[in-house]
Order: sequence, then C-alpha cells, then structure tokens
Amino acid sequence: MTSGISNLKINAGRLQRRLADLATIGAIDGGGCARLALSDEDKAGRDLVCRWMGELGLSITVDAIGNVVGVRPGRQAGPPVMAGSHIDTVRTGGRFDGNLGVLAGLEVIETLNEAGVETEHPLAVAFFTNEEGARFAPDMMGSLVFTGVLPLADVLQTRGIDGSSVGENLTRIGYAGNAPVPAQSPRAYVELHIEQGPVLDHEGIDIGVVESVQGISWTEIEIAGVSNHAGTTPMSLRCDAGWAAGSIIAFVREMAEEMGGSQVATVGRIEFFPNLVNVVPNRAVLTVDLRNTREESLRSAEARLLAHVAALRDAEKVQIATRCLARFEPVPFAPEMTALVERHARAHGLTTRRMPSGAGHDAQMLAAVCPAAMIFVPSVEGFSHNVREFTHPHHIEAGANVLLSVLCELAGAAKPAGVHS
Amino acid sequence: MTSGISNLKINAGRLQRRLADLATIGAIDGGGCARLALSDEDKAGRDLVCRWMGELGLSITVDAIGNVVGVRPGRQAGPPVMAGSHIDTVRTGGRFDGNLGVLAGLEVIETLNEAGVETEHPLAVAFFTNEEGARFAPDMMGSLVFTGVLPLADVLQTRGIDGSSVGENLTRIGYAGNAPVPAQSPRAYVELHIEQGPVLDHEGIDIGVVESVQGISWTEIEIAGVSNHAGTTPMSLRCDAGWAAGSIIAFVREMAEEMGGSQVATVGRIEFFPNLVNVVPNRAVLTVDLRNTREESLRSAEARLLAHVAALRDAEKVQIATRCLARFEPVPFAPEMTALVERHARAHGLTTRRMPSGAGHDAQMLAAVCPAAMIFVPSVEGFSHNVREFTHPHHIEAGANVLLSVLCELAGAAKPAGVHS
Repeated sequence: MTSGISNLKINAGRLQRRLADLATIGAIDGGGCARLALSDEDKAGRDLVCRWMGELGLSITVDAIGNVVGVRPGRQAGPPVMAGSHIDTVRTGGRFDGNLGVLAGLEVIETLNEAGVETEHPLAVAFFTNEEGARFAPDMMGSLVFTGVLPLADVLQTRGIDGSSVGENLTRIGYAGNAPVPAQSPRAYVELHIEQGPVLDHEGIDIGVVESVQGISWTEIEIAGVSNHAGTTPMSLRCDAGWAAGSIIAFVREMAEEMGGSQVATVGRIEFFPNLVNVVPNRAVLTVDLRNTREESLRSAEARLLAHVAALRDAEKVQIATRCLARFEPVPFAPEMTALVERHARAHGLTTRRMPSGAGHDAQMLAAVCPAAMIFVPSVEGFSHNVREFTHPHHIEAGANVLLSVLCELAGAAKPAGVHS
Repeated sequence: MTSGISNLKINAGRLQRRLADLATIGAIDGGGCARLALSDEDKAGRDLVCRWMGELGLSITVDAIGNVVGVRPGRQAGPPVMAGSHIDTVRTGGRFDGNLGVLAGLEVIETLNEAGVETEHPLAVAFFTNEEGARFAPDMMGSLVFTGVLPLADVLQTRGIDGSSVGENLTRIGYAGNAPVPAQSPRAYVELHIEQGPVLDHEGIDIGVVESVQGISWTEIEIAGVSNHAGTTPMSLRCDAGWAAGSIIAFVREMAEEMGGSQVATVGRIEFFPNLVNVVPNRAVLTVDLRNTREESLRSAEARLLAHVAALRDAEKVQIATRCLARFEPVPFAPEMTALVERHARAHGLTTRRMPSGAGHDAQMLAAVCPAAMIFVPSVEGFSHNVREFTHPHHIEAGANVLLSVLCELAGAAKPAGVHS
C-alpha cells in the first residue's frame, strides 16, 4: 500500500444508498430492475450516474457507442487506472449485477476526494453500453467497440428484439457521444462484480479471485416446417418446426450433462408460429447458450449441436438456419493482477477463492488491451438475472474496500505532503 | 329424390364467387384468411353473409352466443332441416374451412328459389360462433351452447388470448343476439366440409362419407421453475421451466408414434418467460392437442401425458399445473344419415369412401340433438389451417350438389303443382 492511506475505507452506507437510488429506476416487483440497454429506463439510470460523476468532479466523456467514462486527474497525465462495469440489466434483473462495479468505483472516488488523496495516474470509472445483450446482440457490445474488436458502423446498425437499431436508440436517448472508438487503452482495469453463481455463498467465502472467464457461444436456430391441421395430419407426414425445437431443447440438456465439467447449455428464448393450439407450427425460433472454460470443449459442444440440427433436418424434412449471435473464447486474466487482488483481499482479513467466471463480463474485453482483474462477492443462493438477486451488505463493503486498495496501488495513491491520516 | 327435382344442380360459378368475396375479408398473404372469432374481421364476414341471407329472403335470427340462423319456410311449420358450419378461421387459415359449408348452404337455397322448389319442412343455413377455438377456448363454442352442452353465462365470461371476454366481444361487434339458447333442435343437420387431411386427395376419391369424429383433448400446461443466469448455474442445480417444456414436446411425439393407429399429438403453442437468451426460463406455458377415434385410447394418451408431467415435476423440481382447455369424446354419426349421404353421392356418379374426421366439427355437437351427417370433399395435399389450403372447383361443385340432394330429401322438396322441370 502506498504511503499514508493504508487505513482508508469506503463509506458502506453511502454506497448502499447509491445502489438503492439507482435501483428505483426501472424497478420491478420483487425488488429487481428492468433497464434494458438504451431503453428509457437505461437513459434515466445513465443520467443519474452522470449526475453523480459530475458532483464528484469527474470529467465525463461519452463515446460513439454510448460508453461513459468519468476521469479524476492524476499528478501525471496519461491513461487512467479504470474501474468499471455496466448499468443495463436483463428484463427481470437484480439491482447488483453491473451496478455494483460502477457505483463502488464512484465510492472509491468519493473516499479519495474526502481524504484528500491524490494519485500518480488518473483514476476513471466507466460504464459500458449493453453488457447484457438482452435487447441487442452481442452482449458486452460497448466494451467490444471500446477495445476495437467490433467495428462501430456495423454495431450501430444492429437491430434489437423490437426491430429498432442501436444507432437509433443511442440518438434517441442522447448518448451517441463523440469520444473516439476504439478508445485509448487504460493503464489497468478492475471490475468488482457479484458472482452470479452459488459457489462463494455455498462455501462461505468472502472474495472470489477471478482467474478466467468462460467462453460463450450463442446460436439462434430458425426452423421452417409446414403448418397443418393438428387433427388430420398423420404423425408420419409432419414437418413440425415445433417438435424440432423441442428436440433441440432436450438434446442440449443431455449433451451438457454428458460432457460434465464446466459445460452449461440453456435454451432461454423460443417462439412458435402461428402459435396456436391446433396448428402444427410452421416456424420456430430458439436460442442456445453454450459455455465452457475450455475452448476445445466449447468447440466440441458447438459441433455436437450442429450435428443434431443436421440430423433433424433430414429426419423431419424441415429447413434449419443457424446464426451465431455471440462467440467469445475463454479469457485468462493477467496472473500479476489476479495475485494483486488476492493479496489485498487477504490484507483486509478476507477469505478468498480462485475461480473462473461463468458469466461474460466487460473485463474480458479490457483484458485484451491492458492488465485486467475481477473481484467477485457472493450472490446469495447464486440467484442472478432474477429479482431475488442479493448480496449481503458486509460482502458489498468488503468487495468495495478491496477495489479501493487495489486501485490505490495501481494508480499510486498518496496523501499530499503535510496531510496525515 | 322427391318428385320433379332430380335434375336440379347448384350454380358452381355463383358459389365460387361467394367463396372469393368472403375470402377478401381478413385476407392474408398467400391467399388465406385471418378471421379470428369475434374480431373485426369476423364481424365483417358475418355482416356479408347476413346480407346474402337477407337477399335470399331468409328470416335471420342471432342467438345469445352469436350463432346466426337463416330460415326458408316450408309448407309445414316446425324445426328446420339445417345446413351449417362456421366462418371464423385460425390466424393463418384457408378460405374453405367452414366457409364452404355455410356458402354451399346459401347456394342450395338460391338454387331452390330460382327453380321455384318448395319443401315440406323449413330449410335453414347456420353459422356457429368460434368453431376454431384459436382465440377463445373451447373450440366449437357456438354449437356447444346451441345444443345446451355448455352454459351461456360461463361461456360469455371466457377470456381469450388477448385477455378480453367472449361477452365483451359479442357486444362490441353487435352479435349478442336475443334468440334463446339452448336452441330448438333442428329436424336434421348436414355439414359439407373440406377433409383437412390428405386421405381423399391421395386416394383420388370425390366424397368422404363421415362415420365419426375423433375425440379431442386439449391441455394447457404451465410450468414454474427458477429464473437464473445461464452461465453460472450448474446443470445439476437448475429448475428449468423451458427444459421441462421441451421434454413434454419430445414426449408427446414419442408417445403418439408408439401408440400408432389414429393417435395424433401436437404442441402448437408455447411461451417462455422472461424469454431471453441468457436467462434460464422461470415459466413456460404450452398446449398439448391429443386426438383419437377411440375413447379408451384417448384416455390412455391423457394418462401417459400426466404421468410424464408428474415425473418431470419431481426430477426438475418445478411446479406444473395442467388445465383442460377442451375435451370431446369421439362422436359417431347416425348410420341412416351416413347411408343417405353415401346413396346420394353415388347417385351423382361420384366415388365415395367412409372415414372418420380427424378434426372437430359443429356437426358432432348437433349429432347429440338430431340426426346429423357430414360430407367431405378432398383437400389438396391435406393442407388446412394454412394459406395453401385448396379444394378443386369440381370437388366443391360435387360436394354442394350432394348437399343439395341430401337436403331436398330430408326436407321433402317438390315443385309446386303445375310447375314442370
């Protein structure tokens, strides 16, 4: 720890108040949030976080994909040490996923401001556009453009589940900014996040030290069959798009169980057409979400899914089109960053566990352009993307204090001469 | 055949024109129709058919469930010999299903009017409300109330897929009439209908003589699981409502194939909630349509479906509620009516085949209160509930001529004294 700030602590009550205030925007029954990316609710959430950034004296920039970065100057110029995450949610989201990383970043800034602590390098807090991918594919869209993986022009034309485009919605909500993308790479990137899985909670551990992020493969499958009367069409003469969809649902579960390890598989979205009780569906659209920590296993799962689809095509005489909605290889974090998080967490007297992330995060995109780390705090019963998502206040506080001390070390924090803690 | 009318024939061009005119209402791409029961399109179709009934001199009554009956007086008073069917369609319906039976009835009336033929008993043409069940369950709603099987008060409160009730919609479109239900039973009932299956077309036969209607069982299944993150929730800890739905789709197909015979099974409608690519569904709703010509086989299929549901409940730790949307036992038609249709079809020089109906029809409800019969004409490739539904004009003409001569015999048709054909 840099001189004179080793006993610095965040204000847990203030962080909880900001979490609660942001959660009132897009609030849904049961205590969760619905702030789909670039919706009116997302705009209101962005406006509130920008107001807080301004009150903390940060210089705010908005880039062309709507990522927002607030910067606190250092004694030197140059790229900042960045904390960040996202504030968009899924349609039935909780109040911690993403929001915690952003608001804990602001809490670190306010803690340093109050204590009169300066840093050698600038400090930044960022929130990235459309991390969830619940309205526009792919997820992690903002950080993908920020780091230059996806070209801006293509992404702006992407249409969402309601048919409108990313570009139209950025303009509509006033977050089509002029900061250039790809952006200058930060000096380092640290993301505090809830685990969103049950491991830390079940094992009673305070802090997850994230070593890698699972690879993710999202496929949309569209099946075209023949619509016909449900009573008069013998089973042997059917080209049933709905049955083919059901077969895929059953297949991916069996495959994931058979593969074991970290493999998970989910069919989360489906639609039948015309979707009537007595009509054999002539069209079905569904999505398959496959994840694995090992790239070769993920490829094997994808290949097995495509083989099943090809077999269905022949057996049911349906046409099947597959479209990749998102594909990310597993991402390892820089070992020195992982070690840094672990060391600071232990220095705070917290228990730790190294683990992969089962979910995708903006940090995995930043890891390609700068040293990056993630700090996980426990999710009660692992609930996430669910209004029951919850993290105990003492875990929120612990995670934010680890973020504070990690950022202080990375940015070179010190009290100015003559100031004593 | 009664005296002096044996060479009477319907006007095929006029019947085709009425079919085409009615098909313009709710027309959809590909030549089909969307006139969901009690929709604005259904109202426009009803208005047109009522206008034609008025032009033919029929006395029109509308009952409290919106069934419309147009009566041509006979020499005697008393219950009429009735032709009928329905004019509502599924959302992707054709132009013949239902409409043919109603408009062929009008064509019979106009043929008799032109030829100056009187009948001993009144002749009626009816169209029944919501035969399809595509918006409100159960199907054959109008004929169920007409024949006293379902109580009017309950049916009026039934809510459809858009949440509005049958009663509200009847009032809205102006077809909440004041004729009493249950209605007086007709003297006899004859329904001309397209087969809606591939049998007559494949075998090259002109007329299907319908001996019975398959039993129908519709079940809505609602599954409640736990919504969670698709990446971080191990397969073993999931309570996945979507997977349970997929398992049911796969099961009913396997069961129907294993049972063989006339058993068919269809999952035509499904919805997931929240229906997002990266969220394990916490709720899924789907429908299962089971049909069989044998009541004990249909019961067995229902029992096997419920056993599968119970096993899923335990295995996946989900809650599952099942609700019967419709249930009809197989219905045999009166043998003397079947024989009558067969005799007249052959007298016209047409080939015939006895067969069951795989679809439900209003005739099966009328069969409980009077002698009833159905006349099938071929559906090209068996397409129905599909814009590709088609019946060749020569088969339409043949079916309507069989309807004419069957109705003439049942109603006691004769030219008045002094008129010679």
